[in-house]
Amino acid sequence: MTYTVTPWEVKGNIDYDKLVHEFGVSKVDEPLLKRMEGHAKKKGLTLHHFLRRNIFFAHRDLKFVLDEYDKGNPFFLYTGRAPSGHTHLGHLVPWLFTKWLQDVYGAELWFQFPDEEKFLFKENLTLEDTQKYTTENMLDVIALGFDQKKTKFLIDTKHATQMYPEALKVAKRITFSTAKAAFGFTNEQNIGAIFYTAMQAVPAFLPSVYHKKALPCLIPHAIDQDPHFRVSRDVIPKLGYPKPASIQCRFLPGLGGISTDGKMSSSQEHTTIYTTDDAATVKKKINKYAFSGGKDTLEEHRKHGGNPEIDVAYQWLTFFEEDDRKLQKLYHDYKSGSLLSGELKAVLIEKLNAFLSEHQKRREKAKSAIDKFIWQP
Amino acid sequence: MTYTVTPWEVKGNIDYDKLVHEFGVSKVDEPLLKRMEGHAKKKGLTLHHFLRRNIFFAHRDLKFVLDEYDKGNPFFLYTGRAPSGHTHLGHLVPWLFTKWLQDVYGAELWFQFPDEEKFLFKENLTLEDTQKYTTENMLDVIALGFDQKKTKFLIDTKHATQMYPEALKVAKRITFSTAKAAFGFTNEQNIGAIFYTAMQAVPAFLPSVYHKKALPCLIPHAIDQDPHFRVSRDVIPKLGYPKPASIQCRFLPGLGGISTDGKMSSSQEHTTIYTTDDAATVKKKINKYAFSGGKDTLEEHRKHGGNPEIDVAYQWLTFFEEDDRKLQKLYHDYKSGSLLSGELKAVLIEKLNAFLSEHQKRREKAKSAIDKFIWQP
Repeated sequence: MTYTVTPWEVKGNIDYDKLVHEFGVSKVDEPLLKRMEGHAKKKGLTLHHFLRRNIFFAHRDLKFVLDEYDKGNPFFLYTGRAPSGHTHLGHLVPWLFTKWLQDVYGAELWFQFPDEEKFLFKENLTLEDTQKYTTENMLDVIALGFDQKKTKFLIDTKHATQMYPEALKVAKRITFSTAKAAFGFTNEQNIGAIFYTAMQAVPAFLPSVYHKKALPCLIPHAIDQDPHFRVSRDVIPKLGYPKPASIQCRFLPGLGGISTDGKMSSSQEHTTIYTTDDAATVKKKINKYAFSGGKDTLEEHRKHGGNPEIDVAYQWLTFFEEDDRKLQKLYHDYKSGSLLSGELKAVLIEKLNAFLSEHQKRREKAKSAIDKFIWQP
Repeated sequence: MTYTVTPWEVKGNIDYDKLVHEFGVSKVDEPLLKRMEGHAKKKGLTLHHFLRRNIFFAHRDLKFVLDEYDKGNPFFLYTGRAPSGHTHLGHLVPWLFTKWLQDVYGAELWFQFPDEEKFLFKENLTLEDTQKYTTENMLDVIALGFDQKKTKFLIDTKHATQMYPEALKVAKRITFSTAKAAFGFTNEQNIGAIFYTAMQAVPAFLPSVYHKKALPCLIPHAIDQDPHFRVSRDVIPKLGYPKPASIQCRFLPGLGGISTDGKMSSSQEHTTIYTTDDAATVKKKINKYAFSGGKDTLEEHRKHGGNPEIDVAYQWLTFFEEDDRKLQKLYHDYKSGSLLSGELKAVLIEKLNAFLSEHQKRREKAKSAIDKFIWQP
């Protein structure tokens, strides 16, 4: 049971506990959850179900930014999306959580679209491709309802005049040896890919440059991006800015199931649901491809019950069914055998299609809003 | 008698014949000189003394751009200056020649100021330092009289939005192994320095992007920059642009003489003459520090004569005295012993101070012209 988690490759059945140890991150613990719950309550909100369910499970220096917030020194948020294809449900996980953080903490969000990253790491992708997907992906971000006044989109090639000089200051302090160790590069890696991590570091302090004030930064992101910030967290304080904090999530598995498909991937079209998929497609993909934790026959299922731990429909509902009681009922009914695999899938299909129908309407409206979200330096 | 010639270090007594072989460049031969002389004549000009005297001595694909020119397909010129200090006389050598090429061939000139290069390669230089020197260095370029309508200054950090996306396309096709071999990098090199060569490649095809037409490019430069173009000449045709041609010069030696001081260097202040030095400083530096090829006593000098081959004053006059007959007379008078070292130095001092006095006036005027030279994309 081996797995790989790097910013450019995630495969296998990921052991998240082991990953915490390997990456040297900390688990999100009860005292931190309590504090965030308290902050949420003040805004009339509850603790996000991604926190209640340990989906955002790890962090670096989260206590620091919460301490600063409590002292009246607010942090900004930084997350991003490296465009290489259409948005799928897995991409939405950190963004949905970032939206909650913006609502609770009133935080400014700097959203990076590093349109060079996948160009540099994928042989057959052109910059024109990634730039096309940048626009597509932006629509999905906007559709989630971020506060336009507090949200700035950074596009690496478009904002290079602002970003490249800052990236140089980071790059000067990272050797090839360091990049090699953090990312597993060989000498055959291209020099653009080697440089790239410096560009990914920039949004963690660019707002401080822009606001002329050293501001704390919190980066919500999927755990595979941690190597970037492990490197840049050493460098950024040397440039005079606070060490950025992060909070990290597990992956939404692909339809193939957690043991083979630990992270949903655009390159596996049939096990991926895109935000632009219509209701019939969603239904078909889930019914046909979602790995089931049910038993082989109806009789056996009724007798022994299903296994929600490996059932993709159930696993996905832990991401998309916000109501804990409903989820708990589904868990027990499925485990007891009273709920069949097909029935559980039907619950998921209905949930997702309701969400996507709304999302697609907002996504359409977002087309006229893009320019307002792009940072005007 | 060892020497080192890389884009970041030049030392020792350079064997230029050996360098031609090592770098794999071609010598500028008689047929090429004849052709350029013909082109010059058509503009009422003579063959530049840097060509007559083998100072621009090597090239890559010069025949190609001359052929294109003769077919009515003009080339553009690309040269540059990595700002790290004040301009000295050595820097002027390729620029003076580039001015002649612009006059003869009516060529557009793209002049790069890679203000990140020395920042990345020198520990104690800040980007603010290099940006300050960019402005200072620009004044010297403008003072040489380039045609403002045909000259565009590119500044890497300022034009990053135009340059970085193009540099990425180059970078994707250069591995660390290639960069390591070309520049002698170790794994302890910083990742900005490793990426940098991609930025230096950009002006060799950016004009083709800008004019939406694949244009031939000629790069006049000092021989130490050849490794950059050796790498990028392999890549640029794969992007759909002509392989850039180059013409390469020897170095103006420092005042210490060719055996120890093969290239004038800003870090050796007392053996360097800056464009802003006043007449008294020039006189003092030359009289005090210029390595002499004269004999130890007046009697010996009168009897055996001096050695112009190692005399810095004479060597500098090969760069700055355009009149072949005057230069030849100085050579013979010095070699025969009728001209003393002090007298030869006095000739050089007068020549340089006349040039610098005029240059400093033009440099002052250039202050109001900078904005017109900076590329407005």
